[in-house]
Amino acid sequence: MNLFVIAKIIGVALNVEAGLMMVPLLFAAYYGENVMPYLISAFLGFCIGLVLWIVSQGEHKVKAKEGFVSAGLTWIVLSLIGMLPFLLFQVVDSGFDAFFETVSGFTTTGATILKNIEALPKSLNIWRCFMHWIGGMGVLVFMSVFVRFSSGSQMNLIKAEISGAVVSKLVPRARDTAKILYGIYIGMTVITFIVLLILKMPVYDAVCATFSAAGTGGFMPLNSSCASYTYEQQLALGIAMFAFGANFNFYFLLLLRKFKQAFRMEEIWLYTLIALGAAGIISIDLMLNIDHSKPILTVHNALFNVVSIMTSTGFAVDDINYWPGISKAVIVFLMFCGACAGSTSCGFKISRLLIMIKATCRDISVQLHPDMIKKVHIDGKVVEEKVIRAVGVYTFVYFMVVIISTLLLSIDGKDWGSTFTAVMATFNNIGPGIGSNGSFGNYSEFSNFGKLVMSADMLIGRLEIFPILALFSRQAWRRF
Amino acid sequence: MNLFVIAKIIGVALNVEAGLMMVPLLFAAYYGENVMPYLISAFLGFCIGLVLWIVSQGEHKVKAKEGFVSAGLTWIVLSLIGMLPFLLFQVVDSGFDAFFETVSGFTTTGATILKNIEALPKSLNIWRCFMHWIGGMGVLVFMSVFVRFSSGSQMNLIKAEISGAVVSKLVPRARDTAKILYGIYIGMTVITFIVLLILKMPVYDAVCATFSAAGTGGFMPLNSSCASYTYEQQLALGIAMFAFGANFNFYFLLLLRKFKQAFRMEEIWLYTLIALGAAGIISIDLMLNIDHSKPILTVHNALFNVVSIMTSTGFAVDDINYWPGISKAVIVFLMFCGACAGSTSCGFKISRLLIMIKATCRDISVQLHPDMIKKVHIDGKVVEEKVIRAVGVYTFVYFMVVIISTLLLSIDGKDWGSTFTAVMATFNNIGPGIGSNGSFGNYSEFSNFGKLVMSADMLIGRLEIFPILALFSRQAWRRF
Repeated sequence: MNLFVIAKIIGVALNVEAGLMMVPLLFAAYYGENVMPYLISAFLGFCIGLVLWIVSQGEHKVKAKEGFVSAGLTWIVLSLIGMLPFLLFQVVDSGFDAFFETVSGFTTTGATILKNIEALPKSLNIWRCFMHWIGGMGVLVFMSVFVRFSSGSQMNLIKAEISGAVVSKLVPRARDTAKILYGIYIGMTVITFIVLLILKMPVYDAVCATFSAAGTGGFMPLNSSCASYTYEQQLALGIAMFAFGANFNFYFLLLLRKFKQAFRMEEIWLYTLIALGAAGIISIDLMLNIDHSKPILTVHNALFNVVSIMTSTGFAVDDINYWPGISKAVIVFLMFCGACAGSTSCGFKISRLLIMIKATCRDISVQLHPDMIKKVHIDGKVVEEKVIRAVGVYTFVYFMVVIISTLLLSIDGKDWGSTFTAVMATFNNIGPGIGSNGSFGNYSEFSNFGKLVMSADMLIGRLEIFPILALFSRQAWRRF
Repeated sequence: MNLFVIAKIIGVALNVEAGLMMVPLLFAAYYGENVMPYLISAFLGFCIGLVLWIVSQGEHKVKAKEGFVSAGLTWIVLSLIGMLPFLLFQVVDSGFDAFFETVSGFTTTGATILKNIEALPKSLNIWRCFMHWIGGMGVLVFMSVFVRFSSGSQMNLIKAEISGAVVSKLVPRARDTAKILYGIYIGMTVITFIVLLILKMPVYDAVCATFSAAGTGGFMPLNSSCASYTYEQQLALGIAMFAFGANFNFYFLLLLRKFKQAFRMEEIWLYTLIALGAAGIISIDLMLNIDHSKPILTVHNALFNVVSIMTSTGFAVDDINYWPGISKAVIVFLMFCGACAGSTSCGFKISRLLIMIKATCRDISVQLHPDMIKKVHIDGKVVEEKVIRAVGVYTFVYFMVVIISTLLLSIDGKDWGSTFTAVMATFNNIGPGIGSNGSFGNYSEFSNFGKLVMSADMLIGRLEIFPILALFSRQAWRRF
């Protein structure tokens, strides 16, 4: 383990964070709010970053080990600095609350411990949503656009942050891949913002909603989340969430005019199919059991919530707590499956689902015909056996995290449903669960220990488990 | 697909069942109860079996395909005949109830739809528990002891019924393996029965309890399950459950006096460790939150329930519904993990847990050091990569069955906890869940559709998913 490499990466990340804090600072100045909290936080981040940067000078190679460990550490350190404005504005009761809120921001979860969001300074709400945007594509990905590391290093940083079973380079050079990803991300963010303005959303709301939808986060400046917006605005946000939940490779292929290849991506099809299927089941369930007088509104609400949960955003227009049992069960399934790999969304990922479904069908065939040799194909390409094995291990670890977290969180003594969905909602970076922490609820009722467990779950979920687990591996800390 | 082979297997299985029905018939005669229900059922089973046997004469080879499909079909057909006594005694309201109860019997689940078990004819209670005993080790395994098939056939039958990631022959010939397994099974059953008699349990109770504990089933002739027995009797039952939940390879090694090898079995160690650990956590939780005045009784109750749930038996001495949150969460974890492979218990299995935990550690190492070549070892032997892959796929399918079943069962509109634990309790063949279907509750409140879903879950769980899934595979039904 080369500790200098890790120090350098964390140092640069802190400097980047200090720079990005200028965004809420400018808004604070514009709205006539106190700018000191941002200035102090940014200054502190900058100083620590500078020290780390200075002690770790020289050309360094980031190996897989360093990529993993520094990803895990960077996210924790960024959250520790990012939480300072909450403490300095004195809007939270404790460091645990501030840490929870900040981790929830960076990991694009959108779970909040704040009871009255509308009482916050406007700039702080923008910082909350802007954290979603930063965390959506990833800090290390952003860094690797403009920091030089020796060859192969960039890829080891990107790999630790971009989701999915197989992280492939879009173009031969990893740095260019990062550039393209951020290019698409920024482009789509700008389009979303303009559309929301055209639909007459107030600028302040549009800024927050855009950052939040782009990062598939879920923080909003209103206690009622998205329920008070017009149907057109809700529809625009729904489409935005769905778009940011799709695999960015799809957009890259579209940009290259490889339409045929783009529309052959099986993940995109399964993603669309699950969204429509889930919305269909929920619509029918709601119409049969709640209200059948407004079919279009019901379908609208079902679609919005399905896309919101599936893409791990967590915007709400309807209180899921009042939905019937089967709709709730569908929501929990969506919490698990998540959206596409290579997007800003979280969860298990459709691509993993696709690989495992196909591997299951193959295994049934092989069990029936032991002599048969059959490969798993996705998008016409063979999926390597070791990838299937790795996804299998991931599946196991995924459910182990759910089980162990539920166990730890049940110490808080909440009811079954709230505890389980709190774990699902934080680990899959969704935000609201079902129960007291439901669509329009919050997580303030949990104990400090519970908040720490959920903060850990959010980080584990966002980084897809292994970078955080690696921090606890003895091997990671060996000198070589 | 050779339909004659399947017909032959089902035919023989039905004849075996008809023969085994003489056991409750004799008890009915002894207790002066109506023998006709058993006579009619056995006669019907025998006739159908005979017809199938006659039409499928000749030497047949059972290939993997036929082994799988016939396992799935045999268990369904056996349940359809086995449920007749319930209908003929008119103790159930519908065919759905009778089917549920019988599947629950054969699959060693022990979930009941009967509200007052003590009102049943004694012979029928013995039939319920005897079904556990038959299903515990498996019908096809039993058949392969004395029916001749061409070489390799026996193994394909045994493989479909014996649990675990890798089914290894104890001795070169599969038929001898089946003989040894049944020898150990019968020997341990007899010992359990004698111990219970020495501890002064009434003969009728001892017969039922022995069959039920041996098959790790859970049916008991009393509404209070095991709560009214003495502590010594409960302790004996606890030890019996634990013993039948251990891998039978362990006993085989002991018989061969290979003590060193036996006590090196990592699965046995992890099994013991999880049981003790879980009982420890629950004891502390109960003492802190419920009652700290009787520590020994608390530890006794915790251990009994832990072993009962873990081995998928489902005997109860304490109502889990009144336990605090963390104890309930531990119980749900135990429902998942189950006991050892190659035992009469069900669930995910400790051996799979062990393989996946080791594979996870290996994957972390390999992600940190991509050039590293590291194998997973269990009991000093290398676990093949394809086994890890297969267990990974199994993990995925396991949780998919849980999710889809919870979704289907939630149509019944029960509360979250009851629905989820009903699925866990039936799919893992445990019996009682948490909620209305808790330790001393029953499943009578569910709809017919719900009962069908749970019946399917019990079969899927007992046969470890694939033999039932194979029934729905087009490939299984192709001629070649």
